[in-house]
Order: sequence, then structure tokens, then C-alpha cells
Amino acid sequence: MNRNRLEPLGVPHAEYDFGAAYARGAERSEPTVFDRWLLEQFRKRLAGSRVKALLWDEPDAKPAEGQAIVQFCDRGAFWQVLLNPALHFGDLYSAGRIEIGGDVLTVVDEAYRYLAKYEAQSRWLNKSRLTAPSVSESRRNIHHHYDIGNEFYRLWLDREALQYTCAYYAEPDMTIEQAQQAKMHHVCRKLRLAPGERVAEAGGGWGGFALFMAKNYGVKVRSFNISHEQIVYSREWAQRENLAHLVEFVEDDFRNLDGSYDAFVSIGMLEHVGAGNYEELGDLMRRVIGREGRGLVHSIGRDRPEPLNAWIAKRIFPGAYPPTLREMMDLFEHSRLSILDVENIRLHYAQTLHAWLDRYEQNVDAVRAMFDEAFVRAWRLYLAGSLMAFVHGKLQLFQVLFAPSAANNVPQTRAHVYTRVE
Amino acid sequence: MNRNRLEPLGVPHAEYDFGAAYARGAERSEPTVFDRWLLEQFRKRLAGSRVKALLWDEPDAKPAEGQAIVQFCDRGAFWQVLLNPALHFGDLYSAGRIEIGGDVLTVVDEAYRYLAKYEAQSRWLNKSRLTAPSVSESRRNIHHHYDIGNEFYRLWLDREALQYTCAYYAEPDMTIEQAQQAKMHHVCRKLRLAPGERVAEAGGGWGGFALFMAKNYGVKVRSFNISHEQIVYSREWAQRENLAHLVEFVEDDFRNLDGSYDAFVSIGMLEHVGAGNYEELGDLMRRVIGREGRGLVHSIGRDRPEPLNAWIAKRIFPGAYPPTLREMMDLFEHSRLSILDVENIRLHYAQTLHAWLDRYEQNVDAVRAMFDEAFVRAWRLYLAGSLMAFVHGKLQLFQVLFAPSAANNVPQTRAHVYTRVE
Repeated sequence: MNRNRLEPLGVPHAEYDFGAAYARGAERSEPTVFDRWLLEQFRKRLAGSRVKALLWDEPDAKPAEGQAIVQFCDRGAFWQVLLNPALHFGDLYSAGRIEIGGDVLTVVDEAYRYLAKYEAQSRWLNKSRLTAPSVSESRRNIHHHYDIGNEFYRLWLDREALQYTCAYYAEPDMTIEQAQQAKMHHVCRKLRLAPGERVAEAGGGWGGFALFMAKNYGVKVRSFNISHEQIVYSREWAQRENLAHLVEFVEDDFRNLDGSYDAFVSIGMLEHVGAGNYEELGDLMRRVIGREGRGLVHSIGRDRPEPLNAWIAKRIFPGAYPPTLREMMDLFEHSRLSILDVENIRLHYAQTLHAWLDRYEQNVDAVRAMFDEAFVRAWRLYLAGSLMAFVHGKLQLFQVLFAPSAANNVPQTRAHVYTRVE
Repeated sequence: MNRNRLEPLGVPHAEYDFGAAYARGAERSEPTVFDRWLLEQFRKRLAGSRVKALLWDEPDAKPAEGQAIVQFCDRGAFWQVLLNPALHFGDLYSAGRIEIGGDVLTVVDEAYRYLAKYEAQSRWLNKSRLTAPSVSESRRNIHHHYDIGNEFYRLWLDREALQYTCAYYAEPDMTIEQAQQAKMHHVCRKLRLAPGERVAEAGGGWGGFALFMAKNYGVKVRSFNISHEQIVYSREWAQRENLAHLVEFVEDDFRNLDGSYDAFVSIGMLEHVGAGNYEELGDLMRRVIGREGRGLVHSIGRDRPEPLNAWIAKRIFPGAYPPTLREMMDLFEHSRLSILDVENIRLHYAQTLHAWLDRYEQNVDAVRAMFDEAFVRAWRLYLAGSLMAFVHGKLQLFQVLFAPSAANNVPQTRAHVYTRVE
């Protein structure tokens, strides 16, 4: 299973011929006076940071305590990073043309400071705003990320519920398993799920949350997902847990969700929907919950509109877009839904990613055996980069609870969410 | 003090010559066949409602149990309501050209259903969106509503803190006094105020919340208000409570707020700011809380953009506009603030208004002695109409907690808000 999965569908391989330049001896000739002058300029920009930049002529350098090294292994890598660090760093690190000595998190942490200072201001309005992937584009995007092997995700996600979304650390020293259980309870309490109710789920992952709701809250769940591998996994899991009579896993686009339900829930799908499709999703949510239901959308978001990091968009998450709360309003305003509660648990995602990254590194040999070193490095950088994006406030995590505008069966306070139901 | 305060500044009296038409005998001549035919049509529209419409030829009619009567006292009143109920009903009722038999809340409740069915769909985008009152316009608007006499408001607001904003019924059977105390605790807990901290308040009313914060949380408060009568009242109150060393009341526009603070808070001011001024207010909030502060904005809002009811805008609250959450985003996005928590406590405002209306009716003779019957009726209708706007989901009440985008000193969970600190 040693396949390089980094190449997104539809992008010609030649465009990202990593390794080829690395192999060219000419680019690893001794640094010139100009290379060294450029390095000096780059180091000035890094002054005060915990990162030391090196060229390819110091292969055995070790980072000092609390520091990290970024080593450019050839001239092309060095120049590309100077030109567009946000785009090229990821591919070059994946290809082994950049080496990191020390903690990758230190490098990514300093990279955010560097980008904030030196990168041109992101455009407020950008093309991503209008992204509206069709059903077939969505299928392709989701296949790219989620169908790379259930076994891969099982290596580093929580072991109980396979939640590939932000956990909730109700207590700061929880394990990732406990925090994912707490997240699911948190969502169910916000929704005040009661036994016998019907729940529609859009984007169900490996089925962990649907099964959790059925098992712990006695509800009937219909869960939609377009990832074939995830649906197969979910159905087997429901059988093993003897919950197949309560949970139906439907391999279909959320746009085909029909029927009527007491509650709608979507955890970590909105990022893939595309802002141009929000009104349609909003209409759907309103339709399925009727006049008296309620719903919750849990999604990565932003404080200000910005395109997704170019490398992540190309290599990891094609078609993904984290919306601002303003952009999310297209879900609610148009379809006469009323927002009851918004909670931003950004720092919980940093902690979640830390737990994932930690477990990922513990199992890195298994990942390498499944894929290859370039994949290992790309996913390491993606997890570390995402972690630091939440630490630096570049990404947010919003849970939005809603109900129809005129529904008066909503809870008066949120105290019930914080009452232990042991 | 028997003055008719209904006339907003700058509007020629002739435009609203209520009473004049009423006095004209011709319009109270026997209903014609056409009048009766129109009434029949109107009654068809009211079919199924608890309101019975009558013309001026049945002066002694009484409502049946659980019903209410709307009686048009002259032909002009009848026709005006048919043409534009949302605009004219208020003035005509105030002027005594419409009489209500039974509970005014029943009438307003049914009016919302009527308007939802028969009034033309409100425009999504409207001129109010761009309203940006200048400092001097703001002064005039605020004077119109808040400077009509502190004694008037003391007749029906809670007696402990004179809060003219939505209360928080932490327990459903609280008195209005308890619920206003609970509201203030709720806000202070969300802000996690600690002794010795500095708080900036924009729009401080009669000073009740500023004094509450100083007394109960040991903070130093600087509170801005452009209502002269309220500032005078606030300062005297601070003296009486021996809190003048902790609370400074500044008679000035929020736009002149300077200095740096640990927290910014604004309860019930945003409605008067005008959507065109939100970015300026956002910049100000960001500036005064620096890199590590936090803030809370509590405001009436909407699920969808809509102009304020025309009668309320003319008679009661000139220049007011309840924004949608989307519109509120101008406060935060532009100035790199991150939304941590939004809570919608719409139904608490219905309960608050019910308590106010109840107390208002208990003191209606005193109100009449201060003003006149037209004033009594206008404010009754305003309180009842606002109550039902919250019941019908036409108005919302949002509390928005925020901090600078990259601030990591934010609380991990909201559990502290729900922990009793007895």
C-alpha cells in the first residue's frame, strides 16, 4: 500500500515534480555569495524567533535547546520559500528538500509570526467565497481526503469514537478519548436530545457520533455521507454494536436528505460545502426540522474571510473553505432560522490536534509503511500547521445552535448543558 | 407636567394632527353600506383570531371571554388601518380613535399574525441598513426617549437597578428585580470580571449596571452616556452608594471613549448606534481592550434585516435599528475581534416586558398625571407590541462576548458562567 496520495485528482503531476530538482546535483553546489547574502536577509527577518535557517552546506547542524532548524537542502527549495512560503514550504518539506531539526511545532509557530509580518495582506474578498462544489465535485473532494484508508485514521484518532473533528476538553487533563466523548455529550446536551426522537446527520464520518447518539440518548439517526469507505465502515460498526435498528447510514449527498426530524446535526461537514451552497443547505435544514425542531452546525471558521492556505487546499483538503460567522449567516437568515447559541472552542482544537499529532508520531512507522515518507511529512506538517492556526487565532471552531425563528419551545437558559447527567 | 411627549423633535405637528379628525362629526356619521362591506372583508381576514373588529356604531360592546375588541371610532381611523396598519394603528390608538376592549396583548398578538399574513414582505435591504447618526443626531434621538423624566421610568422598571434592558430569568419565577440582578451577574460572569480591573461602559442608562459591577465585582468603571438626565441621576446615585471613587460617569458620546481597559461592555446601546457606525465602534472596542481584554455587547437584534416598525421609529425610538447578527459582524470582523460566545435570550425579553407592562398598568394613573392619555396609550402599545415582537421571533436579544483574534487568555469553557458564586 505504498502509494503517494499527495497528488490531488485532476492536477498534472509535472506541476509538482518534487524530488526531481532535489536530485539535480547542480542545485546542491556550494552556496554562492548571493545565496549567503539572501540567507542573511532571511535571518534578519527571523531575528528574535526560535528558528535558525541553514543552507545545504551544514548537513550535521543540531538545534540549540528550545530552538529549531529549517534547513534548505538545495538552492531551488531556498528560493521558492523566499518567494511564496505559504505555498511551497509544504511540498518542499514533504519532498525532503527542506529538513526540520527539532520540534516541527516550533517551526510552524514561528512561521505564523513570520507570515503575519511579511506576507501581503490576504484579500478580504476572494474567489473561495463563491465556491459552490457540485454533487460530483464534492464526491471527488471527499474521496481525496477521507477515502485514503480507514486504517490510517485509526492510527492516530481517538480509539473509541473515531472523531475526526474538534474534541471538547470539559476538563483540561482529559485524554483525547474522554474529550471526544465530552464533545459528543456537549452537542447532544445543546440539542437536548430525548429518547425516541429522530435525528438527521449530515456528514457522519466513520459513524461514531451517530452510534453515540443512539446508544447514549436513545434517538433514531439517519446519517448521510458521500465517503464510500466511511459508509462501509459505519455500517459494519453499527452491526457490531447491535445498533443497526436505530442508525441508518445513507451513502448520499446531504442535498438529498429528506424526511422530517426533531433535530439536525452536522459536525465538521460545512468546511466542505462551499459558501455558495449555504443557502441551499439552510433551506434543507429548515425543511427537515419543521416548525419545532432544532439543529446544530459545528464547523471550522474564521474571524475574517481568507482563502485556505494554498498548500493545504492543493494537497490535503481540495475544495475546503472555513467560513466566517458572517458567511455562515447564509445558512440561517435566508431560511428563517434563529441562532440561539454560538460557542467558539478554538483552543480545544489546538489541544485536539496536539493529541492527534502526538499519536501520529508514535505510529509514524506504520504510516510510512502504508504510504511513503513524503506522505508522512505532508500529514505531519498539516497537523502541526492546523494546530498552530488555532493557537494563532487564524482558525476558529464554531458550534451554532439554531431553531426556526418563531419556535418558542427553545430552552430558556443554557444551564442544562453544564449540568452533569451522571 | 401634562405635556404630550409623543411628537418627535423636528416633525411638524400638523403631520400628526390626531384628535382633529376624531372631532369632525362627519366622520362619525352612521356607517355606510361600503363601510360595512369593508368591515366584512376585514373580519374575514381576522377569521380564527381572538380579535373582533367593530365600527363606531356599537359603543357599548364588550369582548367575550378570552377575546378582545378593536373598535374603530371613526371612518378615517378605520380606513387608515386598512391601508397601513403597522404605521397608523399606534397613533390612532394613542389618540383614542381606536379603542381596545379586553387585553391589549391579545390584540397585539393577533396583529403580528395578521401582519405576517397580509402585509407585503419587508424588504431585505432597506435604508436603515446605512443609518449612521452623527454625534448630534444621536444626542437628539437619545434625548427624545431617555430624557422624558427619570420618575416616569422609576414607575415601572425594576426598583433596585433601574435596568431598561432585557433581564435574565435564571429561574423562571424570579421577580423583575431578581431577574435584573441575575442579568448583571450573567454579564459579569461571562466577562469574568476580577477585583481591581478597569471596565469601560458605553451607554450606561441610569448607572445601575456600572454601580453593580463596582459593588459586586470590585472593578473600576468609566461609563459613557449622552442622556443628560441619566448622567445627573447616575452621579447622584453613585454618591448615595459611596461608589463615586470607583465609578466615573462621563456625559459624552461613546465615540470619545479613550484610555485602556480590561473589559468593554455595552448593554442596550447598539440599537441606537446605527449600522453605518459599527466599524467605528468596533475599532474603538478593539483599541480600548488592547491585546488581552475582552468585551460584551448586549443588543436587540433580528434574524433577518427589516426596518423598525414605522410607528415605533416615529413616536418612540427615532434612529433605532435592531441589527441582524450578520450586520453586527461589522463590529468584529473589521477590527480583528473574535467572537467567543453568542447567546440569544429573546424569550427573556418577552418576560421582562411582561413585568414592565404589568407594573406600568399598576401605575397608569401616575403616568397620566405626568403626561396625558395619548402618552399613556402610546407607551402601553409600545410595551405590548415589543413584548409580542419577542414572542413572535420578530425581535431577538443577542449577548455577544468577544476578544482580540489572537488572545489565548480566553476561558476554555463557559461552565464558570453557570457555577453559582453564592
